[in-house]
Amino acid sequence: MPYIDVDKNLPGIRSLMAFRPETAEPLSALAEALLRDDTGLSRSDRELIGTYTSYLNDCFYCHHSHGEIAVCYLNGDRELVDAVRHNYREAPISEKLKALLHIAGKVQQSGKSVLPEDIALARQQGATDRDIHDTVLIAAAFCMYNRYVDGLASVAPQDLSSYPLRARQIVENGYGAHIYSQAQPTN
Amino acid sequence: MPYIDVDKNLPGIRSLMAFRPETAEPLSALAEALLRDDTGLSRSDRELIGTYTSYLNDCFYCHHSHGEIAVCYLNGDRELVDAVRHNYREAPISEKLKALLHIAGKVQQSGKSVLPEDIALARQQGATDRDIHDTVLIAAAFCMYNRYVDGLASVAPQDLSSYPLRARQIVENGYGAHIYSQAQPTN
Repeated sequence: MPYIDVDKNLPGIRSLMAFRPETAEPLSALAEALLRDDTGLSRSDRELIGTYTSYLNDCFYCHHSHGEIAVCYLNGDRELVDAVRHNYREAPISEKLKALLHIAGKVQQSGKSVLPEDIALARQQGATDRDIHDTVLIAAAFCMYNRYVDGLASVAPQDLSSYPLRARQIVENGYGAHIYSQAQPTN
Repeated sequence: MPYIDVDKNLPGIRSLMAFRPETAEPLSALAEALLRDDTGLSRSDRELIGTYTSYLNDCFYCHHSHGEIAVCYLNGDRELVDAVRHNYREAPISEKLKALLHIAGKVQQSGKSVLPEDIALARQQGATDRDIHDTVLIAAAFCMYNRYVDGLASVAPQDLSSYPLRARQIVENGYGAHIYSQAQPTN
């Protein structure tokens, strides 16, 4: 049960965003700018980095929500998304993405855990400054979203069949705050 | 030395924001909405929560930057800000703020570390849903900002005399992204 009085009909971060629209807007805009950009990293790469970070943070709602979005971008390849979650080193993804997921795992621990050799490895695999920047910020942002969702004990639907529809909506319409403002704030 | 090619004349998060203006805008807007709101928690309370979280994350740039902003709001009381950093339980602050700092410390560990009894304690001291929401999101947001700043090894000026002027600018003008865009993006 959520720690604050939010709309019980909304799951996860959506209930928190409806509670406080003033912060929902920049939170949504950040996700839009970071996860739906097509420069360098693909949208599926970005969602995989977010899914993996959320999985490390044990945030059920976020790693299933963003995992499903990655599945959409990957034309239904749920097996690949699961492989990245559980052991990305053996997953059929590029060496560059593996090096970036390694950096994301460091960021999940702490900023200072990222070492020059982690960056050097990613560069050897072709990562640009922009790729490295976006990887660090995506992983850092999910360390925020995950803590927000679980720190207020928002409701994560346990029935996984509810996630694909929502994922499809995000893929088609984006992370715009208007999606959240459809619900009436309860505060 | 920063891991990516940023403007060497800009410190900390400012160098990263100038590198990537598209994400700088929502990052600034989030700080503005969360830290310069006057409902419930005061601006000094909000900055103290951010300073304390950054201190726990060992982010030199952030805990000094936001510590100085708190000093400004507290009419120069640097001793109080130091007391909150090092041992807030003995600091001359309200029991309500102590209970909220306790929650922020839990969020710094992980979202799931926040327990019903932590929330109940804050409520006993008069915290509202809004106060609890904002505390969790401020602490979560600093877990992002801190990882962003240190994960890319941005430069933190070691000379503490440079922080008060910048703090005064933020107190007077806010966290608007225009502050960062004064610098030329280097990417």
